[in-house]
Amino acid sequence: MQTLSMCIQYDGSGYHGWQRQTHLKSVQGTLEKVLSRVFDQDIEIDGSGRTDAGVHALGQWVSFKVNLTIPFENIKTIVNRRLPDDIYVTHISLESDDFHARYCAIGKTYVYKIYTNRARNPFLDKYFFHFEHDLDLNAIRQAMMHFVGTYDFKAFMAMGSPKENTVRTIYRFDLNQLGNELTFTITGDGFLYNMVRIIMGSLIHVGTGKIKASEIPAVIESGDRNRAKYTVPAHGLYLKTVYYSEEALQKIIMKN
Amino acid sequence: MQTLSMCIQYDGSGYHGWQRQTHLKSVQGTLEKVLSRVFDQDIEIDGSGRTDAGVHALGQWVSFKVNLTIPFENIKTIVNRRLPDDIYVTHISLESDDFHARYCAIGKTYVYKIYTNRARNPFLDKYFFHFEHDLDLNAIRQAMMHFVGTYDFKAFMAMGSPKENTVRTIYRFDLNQLGNELTFTITGDGFLYNMVRIIMGSLIHVGTGKIKASEIPAVIESGDRNRAKYTVPAHGLYLKTVYYSEEALQKIIMKN
Repeated sequence: MQTLSMCIQYDGSGYHGWQRQTHLKSVQGTLEKVLSRVFDQDIEIDGSGRTDAGVHALGQWVSFKVNLTIPFENIKTIVNRRLPDDIYVTHISLESDDFHARYCAIGKTYVYKIYTNRARNPFLDKYFFHFEHDLDLNAIRQAMMHFVGTYDFKAFMAMGSPKENTVRTIYRFDLNQLGNELTFTITGDGFLYNMVRIIMGSLIHVGTGKIKASEIPAVIESGDRNRAKYTVPAHGLYLKTVYYSEEALQKIIMKN
Repeated sequence: MQTLSMCIQYDGSGYHGWQRQTHLKSVQGTLEKVLSRVFDQDIEIDGSGRTDAGVHALGQWVSFKVNLTIPFENIKTIVNRRLPDDIYVTHISLESDDFHARYCAIGKTYVYKIYTNRARNPFLDKYFFHFEHDLDLNAIRQAMMHFVGTYDFKAFMAMGSPKENTVRTIYRFDLNQLGNELTFTITGDGFLYNMVRIIMGSLIHVGTGKIKASEIPAVIESGDRNRAKYTVPAHGLYLKTVYYSEEALQKIIMKN
């Protein structure tokens, strides 16, 4: 048996999330079906993490064990030909036996996209969160700085998530504006369930003046989910990169 | 009863085309359902033309008769709030009684989008035709010129279309290149069924060297559907504008 890793992109709008489900179309289930057919054996894959329904991926990573029945160099082309048009394998590598896409990940970058405009754009709907009102970007930028660092992010985890260590480190948090399109990019050593979407919800509240940027540290410190209430929709969220080496992660953190 | 017109945009990927169908989700059916509820009366709309499953609209026009039960200035907001996120009304106007979105149209502009790249982009799949190979754009530009003018476009009409006058005038035909994204924009007094997609299919054949640009006039003149075989997929096609006044059309034709 060999251990393979794959980097994949997907438009999540046609799927009920990452995780395999018996009667619903999932990204994991779709990939496993194609891989099992290509290698003519039952294949189960491990993703670096689950993405919710509607969440997209620019660089999700998976690992799996396989008895190589076709030449390694042909796999990518054959798999891509069989995958639906909204999933695409960008890389495929042979890994050492102990590689595991989830356990070996040491960091991740997520992107969240918002467009602010009174009018709806029917073409952006599945790929951006449409916000009808203006946002105070200066206040938002100030608030973003308060998230960078090592904190207990319990207040920013969906209720009912499994109990676990809720301390996480955010390495960087950037905002890019292009016309009325806002792209938030956040890199950390890991994220709690719904953490990015709840952080974004707080930023929206800061941008509309509902709370002040300077209140963010107190919200984090409170550990109180009720103080960080708002969760933005899934369809603006993209899993951009997963890091498996310190060098790759450092490069992103240091990049200007 | 008043006659209203509306300009609408839609992402066609979630619909079985424009035309109302009993058991399938269509753009016309969705609009009629919302309008009938908003005005509390049965409303039937006329579109400037039908779009096939997967075809998008940046500016489709519709007209309908209605007994105005709500103030005119509120209609747009109320209708947009009730429409699904992939359909949006951009304008709404009161028209004279004899206005009809189809019969009064004197021209249309369609856009066709292609991206050329070996790798698939799972996010562009519903909005571009993905072509894996390079295209000879010089040859394509030469071929495009042969379509401009007044011709019998019988060879560029889907088989089995109703018999009608097949003479049409193409006023302009432009190609814009941005990296590996190609945007074709074609304006004419009207288009036969599948005409834009068959013309685009011929351009692909020219761009890959299957036929020469200089052969296009003979294909047109032959009136033979078998000589203009290839029909590109629907999902790269956008109905961009419908013209109801000579001035609006002239502005587009003259624009440099």
